Amino acid sequence: MTYAHQLTLAQPYHRAVESVRAALFAQGFGIITEIDMRATFEAKIDAAAAQEIGDYVILGACNPGLARQALAAEPQLGALLPCNVIVRRGEEGRSIVEAMDPMVMVQLSDSEQVRAVAEDADARLRAALGALAGE
Amino acid sequence: MTYAHQLTLAQPYHRAVESVRAALFAQGFGIITEIDMRATFEAKIDAAAAQEIGDYVILGACNPGLARQALAAEPQLGALLPCNVIVRRGEEGRSIVEAMDPMVMVQLSDSEQVRAVAEDADARLRAALGALAGE
Repeated sequence: MTYAHQLTLAQPYHRAVESVRAALFAQGFGIITEIDMRATFEAKIDAAAAQEIGDYVILGACNPGLARQALAAEPQLGALLPCNVIVRRGEEGRSIVEAMDPMVMVQLSDSEQVRAVAEDADARLRAALGALAGE
Repeated sequence: MTYAHQLTLAQPYHRAVESVRAALFAQGFGIITEIDMRATFEAKIDAAAAQEIGDYVILGACNPGLARQALAAEPQLGALLPCNVIVRRGEEGRSIVEAMDPMVMVQLSDSEQVRAVAEDADARLRAALGALAGE
């Protein structure tokens, strides 16, 4: 099971979310979607479901130039975009960061251009996680 | 390459987006993210990029009950959520609808509970596309 890169960050949840946002930005990603799962469950299910999931955000990271290249090569690839980066509460004041591995797209697509874009996106995501690991 | 279910709809783009939204809603999905790729490219790249992609929206469909079950079984599965449904402009007043195949999650995960949830989500997405095909 290797569809996400994982990192444990020695920062509490809210600070970790801001750190992740900054690290992605430094690698050319904008955040174009943001899903607060706790708030979503609170609104759509109930307080118990919100309590169960706890702090959990899905950030949709997009590098517009890479998205343009990928969609020009394979229009349906939007079904797998943007690259999601999760931040969720870990134990003892730590946070867990998990980024979708863009190489999943390579497994699913036959396009050489998609492979090139996915490798670029993957290098950027790894660099972002590497920078976070050094904080 | 089988990561998306595809349907061509005999409706112009804006009407197709509303039809897709209604069909997903009827199957218990809310739309929790929405990315207008044309507007994103216009804002982040330039008018030529917006022109190149044309009308293109990525709707993030989520059934909260299914998401709750999936995340309880495998917290990192948020890296693959929500289920994206693309609507884009086709030829001669038609529109192309492509839904991420939730069985992709089964290929990537070892969890039996994820399989059960993905099968449920897949059945609902197929039902939504089936209803649209009958319009």
